[in-house]
Amino acid sequence: MNSRLVIIGGDAAGMSAASKVRREQPDREILVFEKTGHTSYSACGMPYLIGGLIANHEDLIARPPDVFRSKYNIDVRTRHEVTGIDPGQQRIEVYDHASRKSFFEPFDQLLVATGARPFCPQATGDDADGIFGLSTLASGLRVQSFLEKHTPKTAVVVGGGYIGLEMAEALTRQDIAVALVQRDREVMGTLDADMGALVSDALRQIGVELYLEEEFREFTTDDGMVSGVVTDRRTLPADIVILGMGVQPNSQLAAAAGLELGPRDSIRVDAMMRTSADNIWAAGDCASTVHRVTAQPFYMALGTVANKQGLVAGTNIAGGKATFPGVVGTAVSKICAVEVARTGLQEKEAQYHGYDYASATIEAKTRAGYYPGAGTITVKLLAEKVTGRLLGGQIVGMEGAAKRIDTLATALTGGMTAAELVDLDLSYAPPFSPVWDPLQTAARQLTGKL
Amino acid sequence: MNSRLVIIGGDAAGMSAASKVRREQPDREILVFEKTGHTSYSACGMPYLIGGLIANHEDLIARPPDVFRSKYNIDVRTRHEVTGIDPGQQRIEVYDHASRKSFFEPFDQLLVATGARPFCPQATGDDADGIFGLSTLASGLRVQSFLEKHTPKTAVVVGGGYIGLEMAEALTRQDIAVALVQRDREVMGTLDADMGALVSDALRQIGVELYLEEEFREFTTDDGMVSGVVTDRRTLPADIVILGMGVQPNSQLAAAAGLELGPRDSIRVDAMMRTSADNIWAAGDCASTVHRVTAQPFYMALGTVANKQGLVAGTNIAGGKATFPGVVGTAVSKICAVEVARTGLQEKEAQYHGYDYASATIEAKTRAGYYPGAGTITVKLLAEKVTGRLLGGQIVGMEGAAKRIDTLATALTGGMTAAELVDLDLSYAPPFSPVWDPLQTAARQLTGKL
Repeated sequence: MNSRLVIIGGDAAGMSAASKVRREQPDREILVFEKTGHTSYSACGMPYLIGGLIANHEDLIARPPDVFRSKYNIDVRTRHEVTGIDPGQQRIEVYDHASRKSFFEPFDQLLVATGARPFCPQATGDDADGIFGLSTLASGLRVQSFLEKHTPKTAVVVGGGYIGLEMAEALTRQDIAVALVQRDREVMGTLDADMGALVSDALRQIGVELYLEEEFREFTTDDGMVSGVVTDRRTLPADIVILGMGVQPNSQLAAAAGLELGPRDSIRVDAMMRTSADNIWAAGDCASTVHRVTAQPFYMALGTVANKQGLVAGTNIAGGKATFPGVVGTAVSKICAVEVARTGLQEKEAQYHGYDYASATIEAKTRAGYYPGAGTITVKLLAEKVTGRLLGGQIVGMEGAAKRIDTLATALTGGMTAAELVDLDLSYAPPFSPVWDPLQTAARQLTGKL
Repeated sequence: MNSRLVIIGGDAAGMSAASKVRREQPDREILVFEKTGHTSYSACGMPYLIGGLIANHEDLIARPPDVFRSKYNIDVRTRHEVTGIDPGQQRIEVYDHASRKSFFEPFDQLLVATGARPFCPQATGDDADGIFGLSTLASGLRVQSFLEKHTPKTAVVVGGGYIGLEMAEALTRQDIAVALVQRDREVMGTLDADMGALVSDALRQIGVELYLEEEFREFTTDDGMVSGVVTDRRTLPADIVILGMGVQPNSQLAAAAGLELGPRDSIRVDAMMRTSADNIWAAGDCASTVHRVTAQPFYMALGTVANKQGLVAGTNIAGGKATFPGVVGTAVSKICAVEVARTGLQEKEAQYHGYDYASATIEAKTRAGYYPGAGTITVKLLAEKVTGRLLGGQIVGMEGAAKRIDTLATALTGGMTAAELVDLDLSYAPPFSPVWDPLQTAARQLTGKL
């Protein structure tokens, strides 16, 4: 197995795979081509960097390229952009941004770990300066330097997903007046609207102006700089615009090479991370996965998934055997003091998949009611009526609320019913929980509706 | 079903059952005999009351007797101590502490919810004033009034279980010099010694003097007041002594009536909470349960279990059908800033039950390493070698550490393997977790040892 492994992309999935192969095969040739100058960074940390909670962008880098080169003997080539994949000839075409030259590079095994990019609307003014999506560390640093250079007074965030909301908070922390435009009834469309309303309130409380159920139309510009965002109802002034409309997989190379695509144009992979082409693997934000509640193909661009898929791909590329069974759609965020978490199916997903479900929503406390610091927590659970099987849940609450979603994610993975959740031996002490954990209080109410 | 329900004991299990029966059967006659003056209180909150974190003992009472009487039509008789059960004649004997009279009371259905009491060593001096176990709210109030009246300078806690440690912290908060005597190598014997050592350190850091691997022998007294604790190695001065050597079930009445006993002399019940005697049920700290990892009878005196068993007993007594499937041994505590949690089997339990197991212990961070407030968390996991099935786990760490035990308790209940824990879709965002949750980092290491 001393064949040549080439990896496209040097972040979570790519470098997890490279590291795993190196541990298993100390002598194997491993080449990584990375478009930007960075490897193995926490993209999720960028809102905290921009918001000033983290002082130094280097704190976000787990391992820089030179450490991979010197300590792991992984040949990482940064600022090298792969421009083509040729599965037949087993080679890729690479453009070196430094030398401005293109060349071909042969592979025996290829891992595509090209990640995802923010969804950018095609609209008038979209080429103006001051419009940013957040994906790579480089994009985060561009926002940071823009803020330093231009000290914007007003910002518009287009889209109310996780990154959009975290950036709305980050910019507010920098004393910028932030408006947020969102097409849906409430922010955070991965929650049901009744739960999203709690998050909308949290944003309003720190001074973010919400323009809900408004459609983005275009940008206004002034001498090449963005100056505003036009919706179907108004024009909002904007010295800076953040795109928070979600991401899409970087699957263009794979698609051009004839690889099969999956949900939302992600690269279709099996549980071993094999694509439809021989000797070509894919992992991370560019690749598909499976939803373990519906057993359907699914797309989810998250660092946890990227790390796991990279590890599985690396294990298999190194001649071992591993599978990635999929996700249940778990996500978590902190917006100001409010913790937000979700897993499994939300109502519209349950409806789309044809489940006959019941839901229950309860309000409880994060700790024993008498214990100092007890905060409000709202839990919503969904279960299938005929079987009682849990389908999903959402949590919005104060400190200690969000990580409870892991219990539910585990229960979903185990195919547990609402009644089985009531029976779980969850921990209780006054600093941590009421005697009935809020998850179980919700499950008790839900069992009464099944 | 308008037969007469009599309940012995008015705390978690008894009143959960009474409330459930009342909801299902609005007209049923329900009598509750409670030895103390209180109902439905949080015994777990007493250390925080004594430590001054909670101002008023009434905050610990969920519902006082008069609310049960007036709002729920439940005939609660406080300061009524049941002194005998006659299963043949279906009646109990009751002593009224107010009138100092005994009488018989017939029942159609009887629920024994007599709770547990602190283990008190039979030793010279054990009848002295100033020696306290913590169980009922009344006992907590006695400690509080003793502290006010005598302002002790020195305290000895005998035993290093949850209550003992929480009381050691509470007394330290009251500027009392606290020594703790423990027979085992480290405090908190429900953890393995390597994990217990972390808790021992936390206690030392707030100034508690630990005397580990020392045997309690007897008390010294001075004019009827406790003055010291004698171990096999020294005499420690003590103006007050707290017994923290665990609890034992209040099963004497049941045993005298011929009811079968289970582990640690708890009242043996089936999954419906039926005892071995017709029309007699038991629930809560006096009753047995089942350990869902070993499938063996088990005893666990915790408020969560008491509430659940009470609800199940109430459902069945009211003519419904419910079962309590048992526990996995989950417990959690906070000692100063350190959070401690455990579930499933510790090493000595795994050995006792004959499992061939492997363990892995890792140190990680509670949040992304770069995020403000990231603290240390240590996770230890055990799994069976032949199947990979998880057997148990322990967590010691800073804020956000302990509630992770619920994920593990859920995985144990689902019979998951260490590899399945690695695959779980647990939540990640920088304020909550590293990208690999510490549980999964431990599980990854453990899979390498199986």
